[in-house]
Amino acid sequence: MEKEFYYIELFEIYKGLLTDKQRDMFYSHYCLDLSFREIAETEKSSRQSVYDAIKKVKLKLDEYEKELRLREINQGIIELAEKTDDKELSARLNEIIGR
Amino acid sequence: MEKEFYYIELFEIYKGLLTDKQRDMFYSHYCLDLSFREIAETEKSSRQSVYDAIKKVKLKLDEYEKELRLREINQGIIELAEKTDDKELSARLNEIIGR
Repeated sequence: MEKEFYYIELFEIYKGLLTDKQRDMFYSHYCLDLSFREIAETEKSSRQSVYDAIKKVKLKLDEYEKELRLREINQGIIELAEKTDDKELSARLNEIIGR
Repeated sequence: MEKEFYYIELFEIYKGLLTDKQRDMFYSHYCLDLSFREIAETEKSSRQSVYDAIKKVKLKLDEYEKELRLREINQGIIELAEKTDDKELSARLNEIIGR
């Protein structure tokens, strides 16, 4: 479950780099909680190819985070913003990451 | 010149998402200052296709920055780190963006 949440976070950050189809499939499975079989029915495809496609998306998300570390950066900034007593600094930090 | 520097900055951030060939061509032209013709000779290709390939890389870099804003985030953090008198905060900000 925690691992799934991790991929949903990566998806929120990097979804703009995915194709429409990759985005739809990932969203249907992880955010709408549809099964591979249910997605396959909508896509007129097989359960196996939906499974493979979503696995490929997860590999892509891992690759993006490995290369760019944007989730890690966001988390570091959020932590700082929450920890500080300086309200102006906190607001600026949140603004930088578009939060 | 300023615009070229902008793309070199984007390249430094996003090069991990490019193919080896895209990386080599961009680096040869923008960082080693080789002409399209010189690169074409090494690549056993035409000047036009080198030009097109590098233009495509720049479009990719623009797309990455539009979707992820990582250069903008880095710059916001660097500015904060340079402006503050709090040395600990400055060090932590630089650490977050791996500087």
